[in-house]
Amino acid sequence: MEVNYKNIKVIGFDADDTLWVNETYFRDAEVEFGKLLSDYETLNKIDQELFKKEIENLELYGYGVKAFTLSMVESALEISNFNVSAKTIEAIVNIGKNMLDKPVELLDGVEEVLDKLSKKYRLILATKGDLLDQERKLEKSGLTGYFHHIEVLSDKKEANYSKLLNHLDIKPSEFLMIGNSLKSDILPLVNIKANAIHIPFHTTWAHEQVSAKETNGKKYKTMNSLTDILNLL
Amino acid sequence: MEVNYKNIKVIGFDADDTLWVNETYFRDAEVEFGKLLSDYETLNKIDQELFKKEIENLELYGYGVKAFTLSMVESALEISNFNVSAKTIEAIVNIGKNMLDKPVELLDGVEEVLDKLSKKYRLILATKGDLLDQERKLEKSGLTGYFHHIEVLSDKKEANYSKLLNHLDIKPSEFLMIGNSLKSDILPLVNIKANAIHIPFHTTWAHEQVSAKETNGKKYKTMNSLTDILNLL
Repeated sequence: MEVNYKNIKVIGFDADDTLWVNETYFRDAEVEFGKLLSDYETLNKIDQELFKKEIENLELYGYGVKAFTLSMVESALEISNFNVSAKTIEAIVNIGKNMLDKPVELLDGVEEVLDKLSKKYRLILATKGDLLDQERKLEKSGLTGYFHHIEVLSDKKEANYSKLLNHLDIKPSEFLMIGNSLKSDILPLVNIKANAIHIPFHTTWAHEQVSAKETNGKKYKTMNSLTDILNLL
Repeated sequence: MEVNYKNIKVIGFDADDTLWVNETYFRDAEVEFGKLLSDYETLNKIDQELFKKEIENLELYGYGVKAFTLSMVESALEISNFNVSAKTIEAIVNIGKNMLDKPVELLDGVEEVLDKLSKKYRLILATKGDLLDQERKLEKSGLTGYFHHIEVLSDKKEANYSKLLNHLDIKPSEFLMIGNSLKSDILPLVNIKANAIHIPFHTTWAHEQVSAKETNGKKYKTMNSLTDILNLL
């Protein structure tokens, strides 16, 4: 069924890997982490253990770089069977600090798209992760002026989006979400009868991956790049 | 000069140490941390070093338990001159995890005050710290229903509050903030010509302390307990 984009009043943009590079930095961090612990385990096993720890800690820590850093520290202790050195722990903490200090690298066409859409729609940024980190990235990106406001969500499930729409005082049919994660930016919106456009990024965190079964028959559009949206809206 | 409380439309409540106990848990954590490192330094010196590290990391990490935990880990490495054991690092990470898992202990009169005020005013929760942690505490507190919404701020400076008032679409004179921290809940509000009531908590983090010079001549009320507010509003 075709979506009627004429009803759209507010467009929500995901930030990480939709407007700017993010997941790449996590992959780089995992490689560094693997090297630091290569005396104790294979790289593959280290990757698996770290991922397990992240998921184990997700409910307590939530998303973002600080949570990731704490999970790396805890994993290092366990992977090394408590033989890891204090210097290695320091190196791990510094991986996290460097991630927080990275420049913001905009994806192709972001400024053009935001500039054009901001003249016709109210744009908001809807992201999860560390509040301070996301605010800082938005600041560094130079994109602040395009957004009516920034909404940092502790998670991106149906209930979080329903609350957001309530707060924006709009109907689901009046909201369009644009993002790279099927799990976080697309399916929850489709499920509450809002609109969604999926723009895949070349790297997706395992936790964000969904099966074909989950997307089967769901009403959303997929586009290759952000600029393609301008043909639609 | 007397404040005209008749203009108030929205009341913002700080959460930690205004509605529920928080700083006490940080003090307890510092004591535990001191014990873990007592082989290396005096308790006083350990306290000083940890505080220094927290302030050093504040811009990068922001507020909250995860930031505090990472600062404890880093301090432990330095205080021990990189002799701290992996088991001690684990114990430090667990101090943080236990803090995130603490029950929420409401301060006296909170429910009565929120119940009465929510019938006359729009109440919001305006807090800083970890987004997920603050949402979880609000959930555990059973107070969610009293608040129109929860605003987790990355910091509580004048600009953060001005943005909040803009977002709420109200004038400074229509907003009253209630909180325990002169630095975060009171002075920034007074400075943007909004209203503020200070309710001291018995323990204040050193970073939140202000000098008599900073409060001299500022227009705000101080009350002994939250229930005293009902005599005013």
